[in-house]
This record gives sequence, C-alpha cells and structure tokens, in this order.
Amino acid sequence: MEKKIMLDENEMPDRWYNILPDLPEPLPPPLDPETNEPMKPEKLEAIFPKELIRQEMSEERYIPIPKEVRDIYLLWRPTPLIRATRLEEYLKTPAKIFYKYEGTSPPGSHKPNTAVAQAYYNAKEGIERLTTETGAGQWGSALAFATRLFDMECRVYMVRTSYHQKPYRRVLMELWNAEVIPSPSNLTESGRRILEKDPDSPGSLGIAISEAVEDAVKNDNTNYSLGSVLNHVLLHQTVIGLEAEKQLEIAGVEPDIMIGCVGGGSNFAGLVYPFIRKDGVEFIAVEPESCPTLTKGEYRYDFGDTAGLTPLLKMYTLGKDFVPPPIHAGGLRYHGDAPTLSLLVKHGIVKARAVAQLDTFRAGKIFAETEGIVPAPESTHAIKVAIDEALKAKEKGEEKVIVFNLSGHGHFDLKAYQDFMEGKLS
Amino acid sequence: MEKKIMLDENEMPDRWYNILPDLPEPLPPPLDPETNEPMKPEKLEAIFPKELIRQEMSEERYIPIPKEVRDIYLLWRPTPLIRATRLEEYLKTPAKIFYKYEGTSPPGSHKPNTAVAQAYYNAKEGIERLTTETGAGQWGSALAFATRLFDMECRVYMVRTSYHQKPYRRVLMELWNAEVIPSPSNLTESGRRILEKDPDSPGSLGIAISEAVEDAVKNDNTNYSLGSVLNHVLLHQTVIGLEAEKQLEIAGVEPDIMIGCVGGGSNFAGLVYPFIRKDGVEFIAVEPESCPTLTKGEYRYDFGDTAGLTPLLKMYTLGKDFVPPPIHAGGLRYHGDAPTLSLLVKHGIVKARAVAQLDTFRAGKIFAETEGIVPAPESTHAIKVAIDEALKAKEKGEEKVIVFNLSGHGHFDLKAYQDFMEGKLS
Repeated sequence: MEKKIMLDENEMPDRWYNILPDLPEPLPPPLDPETNEPMKPEKLEAIFPKELIRQEMSEERYIPIPKEVRDIYLLWRPTPLIRATRLEEYLKTPAKIFYKYEGTSPPGSHKPNTAVAQAYYNAKEGIERLTTETGAGQWGSALAFATRLFDMECRVYMVRTSYHQKPYRRVLMELWNAEVIPSPSNLTESGRRILEKDPDSPGSLGIAISEAVEDAVKNDNTNYSLGSVLNHVLLHQTVIGLEAEKQLEIAGVEPDIMIGCVGGGSNFAGLVYPFIRKDGVEFIAVEPESCPTLTKGEYRYDFGDTAGLTPLLKMYTLGKDFVPPPIHAGGLRYHGDAPTLSLLVKHGIVKARAVAQLDTFRAGKIFAETEGIVPAPESTHAIKVAIDEALKAKEKGEEKVIVFNLSGHGHFDLKAYQDFMEGKLS
Repeated sequence: MEKKIMLDENEMPDRWYNILPDLPEPLPPPLDPETNEPMKPEKLEAIFPKELIRQEMSEERYIPIPKEVRDIYLLWRPTPLIRATRLEEYLKTPAKIFYKYEGTSPPGSHKPNTAVAQAYYNAKEGIERLTTETGAGQWGSALAFATRLFDMECRVYMVRTSYHQKPYRRVLMELWNAEVIPSPSNLTESGRRILEKDPDSPGSLGIAISEAVEDAVKNDNTNYSLGSVLNHVLLHQTVIGLEAEKQLEIAGVEPDIMIGCVGGGSNFAGLVYPFIRKDGVEFIAVEPESCPTLTKGEYRYDFGDTAGLTPLLKMYTLGKDFVPPPIHAGGLRYHGDAPTLSLLVKHGIVKARAVAQLDTFRAGKIFAETEGIVPAPESTHAIKVAIDEALKAKEKGEEKVIVFNLSGHGHFDLKAYQDFMEGKLS
C-alpha cells in the first residue's frame, strides 16, 4: 500500500456535503436573543451575506463549490492522505493508521477551507470589510489570507493575552494586511464595558466575538465572519472528508474509527460528516479536559458570545461566561460546540472523549519523531486518541483502520513544545 | 492553463541529475589542506561515507535515488509547480511566472532533499551519529528530521547569535531529538581557541563548520554532514528541477528565465542544473548585497570553514574570515559558493545578481499579498528578481516564461517580517 495517497486537481470535490437533511432529528433553530423566538433569516442579514444564510438553513444534501473558491483551494488542495506506517511500527500495532494532512495551506491549518468561501460570498454580495475574532490566531490568519485574496479589508479582534504572548500569528495577519486589535478594546461598547470593570482583562473568545459582531452591525459594508460552530462553516470543511473518502477508496480500505479534535467542531465535522451515514464506523470527538464542553457541558440553548449579542444556539455548553484555563491548544478553548455536532453526540452517533494536555504533547512528540511532521497542539488531541485506539487494537489483535484529521502544523507553536520539553507544562 | 501543476507519486524522479559530466571544463579538484595536492578520496572517509564520496566525484550523468530515500521524499514530494497568476495580474505583466514550492516539507524548506539522502547513506554504512552546523536553523532542522527517521543521533553546532535569537528552530531540532550546541563551544579545540580570544564571540557558520568537522573526526561512528556547496549535496537537490521539467512540459511551456537564491548554491542548483544544457535560457543566481560572493568575491581556492580544517575548494569567495552582517536571510550568509556553480558563473553560463535586503522583503510582502504564501527571507531574493524580470518583460511587451524556486516558507521568520513592517530593517 502506498505511503501517501494524492488526488489529481480534477478529483477535488466540486460540492460540499450538508449534514442537515441527514440528522437524526431536525436541528433546533437558533433563537433571537430579543424575542426568544426562532431567528428570522432577514435579521441575520445585518452580519451575514444572503448566500451563507441560505446555506446555514439549507436542506440540500450537496452544495456546489463555486469556481472562484475552487481556484484558490487549488493552491494547497487536494491535501494528502498519509498512512502513518512509522507510527504503526513504533506502536507495533496491527491497526492501519491514516491521517488527512491540512497543514500545507498557506496559513498552516484547515481554517482557510471556510475562510475562502466566506470571503468569496461576502465579496460577491458587495461587502468590502469583514470582522472576526481569534484566539491563538489560526482562524484570524486564515480570514486575513482569504480577505486579501478577494481585496477586502479585515479586522481581527484578538484575545489580548494571545495578542501579547503570540506576536507571530499577529505578524502573519498583518502581512496579509489585516488590522489586528487586542480585545477587549475601546473600539466597541462591549469592549469598553469589560474594560470599565477590569482594565487589565486578559480577554476571551466570547468577548472578542461580541466586539467583532458589534463592529459588523454598526459599520457599513461590513459583515462578520465566524470560524467554526455554524452550519455553513462546517459545511465548507467537508471538502476534507469528501477527499478522504476518495483516497480511502484508492487505498482499498474502509474506516473503522474516525477521529478529530474539537473546539467548535469544524475540523472534526470536515473529516467526519461525509462518513456519518456509514454503518459500523466509530466517530470520536476529542476535546481538552480543561474545556470539556461535550463531556461535561449541558445540552441547552446558550449564547455564542459573552455579551449576549449572538443568536442563542442549542448546543453543549459550559456557559457563556466560562473562561477556560490558558492551555496551548488555543483553538480548542471555547465554551460551546457546533449545534449539529452537539445533536450527534446527544444521539450517541458521535462519542466524545476528553484528554489531558500533557498526554497530548507526549503524543505530538511521538508523532513528530515517527512521522516527521510537527503537529499543532490542537491536532495532538486527535493523535493522542488515535494512538490509544491503535494500542487497544494491538491488545485485541484487531486490524482496525483508524483515520484522523491532522488539522494543522505546529510551526507557530514551538514555544508550547519548548515548555513541554522543559517540563513546564501540566 | 492550470494554476497548479502536480505530479503523481509514480512520476517522482527515480534518479538525480549529476552536472559534473556536463560542465564546460573539468572541475578543479578539492585540495588537501596538509599537502595542497588533490585530496585523496580515502582521506575524506574520516568524515563522509564511501557512497557520498563516490557521488562527489562521479562522472555518471544520472544517479539512482534509493527506494528508502524515495519513500521518505513521498511524505511531501512531488512538490507543486504553481503559476503565479495573481502576481502576474498585480504586475500587469505579459510574462508567465511559475514557482516551484519546496515549503511543504516537514521542516519547511528544500533542505531535507539532501538531508534524507545523506542520513540514509551514512546509516547504511554503519554510521550512528552525524554532526553538522547551522546558521538560522533551516539546515540543522532538516538534518535533525532526517537522522530521526533513520534512528541516528545528531549534533548540531548552531551559530551562537542564532541559538539565542531564534529559539524556535532550535526547539524544532530538539523535537526531532537532535542535540543543539551554541557555537563556538567548549566541546572542541576549534571552539575553545575562538573563545580564548573572544569569550563573547557571536559565532559564524565558518566556526560552526570547524567544530562539527572536528567532532566527526574525533568521534567513533560519527560522520559530518554539509547542507550545501559540495557536489553530492547539489546532486540530491536536482529532484526539484527534474520534477519541474515534467511539470513545465505538462503546462506546455519552455522556460526563458530561471531564478534561484544562492547561499552555498543548493536550492539554485536543485532547480536549475537539470535545465543547464538547454539553449536560450537565462539562469540568474541571486545573492544578498551584504554577502556578495558571486558578484564581488574572488575565484580561487579557499577553505570551507574558518579554522581551515576542510579541503580547499576552488570557488568564488569573500575569504574564510569574512563575517557577513546579520541579515535575516541567514541561509545566504556564507563566504563561499558551490564549486560547480562558481565555474558556471565564471563561464557566464549562470549570471549572478546581488539585491538589497529591504527590496527582498518588499518583494516578499507583495508575494504574500498576491499569492498568499509567506516566503522565507532567503526565497524572497528569488522573488525580487522574478518581479524585476517580469517588469522588464512588460516594458518590452514580451511573453517571457519565468520560473523560480520558492525554497521555503517564512513561518519561522515572522520576527524578520515584523521588523520590516515596523520600519526597523535597512
């Protein structure tokens, strides 16, 4: 069997997979925070373009990928599916481990799959400026990259601690001409309200979302863009799984276990959703123990942001005011989860598992040593569980096929690995 | 025409191209520093494996790539050839600009093409440990990556200023289990001699080479590995140009101008050498104004290192004691150049051009804004000249085909871009 399975350009999917028609029950609708009634699509037009609202609600199973988006995807897509033969040998497991590698995109992660699509639809509807929030900077840099390619302006509210501790992702965003603002800021009412109470507030993703949404509402020709959680965001990521489907077919195997890490759910959904109707596959969503939304959260309506400006979503949540400890997998520090993923977990179709930070870095180091690729701290969560499952397969003598999503490289996270190697992590 | 031209796995070259039989005159032999006579191959066995010495002297035009090396290449090869359509539009040039992108390898540059081959041949001949030097860390991280995959030990002498200023490449090397020593160190005589004179010596590539060579000579089962300059190193890089040859054929174009940046010459040679016998192609080697080896150096025998431990090579050199200013393109700070490239420049087959640091960063930013990829500071030298040539083509209304090597991504160099954007560079 080949080590790496590539697809030709013309084998890149020309449509995304929409899970809405295949959910086990209808998705509870987003609620208007002013009325507590189902949100009217028109109201969402204050911050989203019509086409993305349509996709958010669509019941069509497949949605075509526009040529303009495909042209940019081609810069790094199709991405490789790689058999982790060296890791298998190291573990002495009979399992076959495959990973889909999304780290070859210019910003280094899966995030541009949706950033490019969102920038495109906004530009097409005449929007000239996008706002968003970012924690560690993976999403912000993806949107900066995408808006640049469509000649749009971009403002990123970056969680203040990250702004100061992780200057390099900020530089990356600025290289793509985005304006990066430490959040909470004085530029919005939501920001000022926080700063009045606590001038030294370190910020949080919830606060930054409030600022970005407020900015989009109040400014002309400006929309807001979200990097995870919403249906249309997860939809755009399914290009990952649709490619993987063809690649596994070429490899001549059927997956037994599919794994992805979860912050809001977009990289997990991207790999897994196109396989969700397949029988006999175990789907495992991996989250950090320190932000155990799916494993310890409540399934209920909650806000997406701290100030309560967003629609209410039915999801697993730790509460909108939950501030997760500053783990290095910044992309997994979110109080809620995608409503579609939450529903699948509630129905037991997807299993959730929480893992400890130190174990994920150990797994990441083993992966770097065997497969040669240094994974992002977020992705190490998937690796940790892939290793656990491969060892279980070894115990039972089973030739399981394990597939996980390597959502990004760790080249921007070497400080975290340094802390790990120096024994400074807990 | 396609934006990106990919090759299938089975189209990856199965042999390297050796330029020695095609040089315009026989290559002046390396000289033994003790006798000033041509170096006896046996003497090189103190630090190199037999097969690499054979390749260094070989007159065969093609040398097979071993399966074990190809298997690892497949992790990231074949690499894409991309048409820079957005850059062309920005420049409003009739020229067609293509770049070969080597930044998708796990260490992020072209360097593993030879690191993997060198580790393989050494391991095959029973060597258990390799030493080397590194400036900014691109080469050191490539060798750390390669030795890890062949279960070898690796010690990297890293120029002390870089060791302290660029901790992240060091962390990357340590993640792959290499031992990284700031140079000059107390571990070698060469290092101690420098430290006696100047305890605060910032180090240099020449000093670090002396330390690494001495370490290899004095320790059992240890060899030395060089990341550029030597024939066998440039040979291994030709996999780049051999792929590009097939890709340009698929694109249906013939190159008019081919461009690469030059430190020691390996990424330039990698792209260009397979095309060197082609008529009517202009080959441009780009170096920094601050280290103008090819444009202002002397063509004569000189040492590869500062202490004078290496054989003497006939090359363009600024003198073994030349210490280039601390520009950000650390990979281009070397006093000498590959003997084969020097000979081609002397014969006018390859033209050399020196460019200013500030201009290269401006070119890098334009490239990031248009093509979306943030280039390594080394690679921006090639981009700067590609842009210049595309503008010349525009002036003359010529549809030139310009091909350059994008040797690595700039994800580890964001501090340099930050300094540039803040106006701190000169």
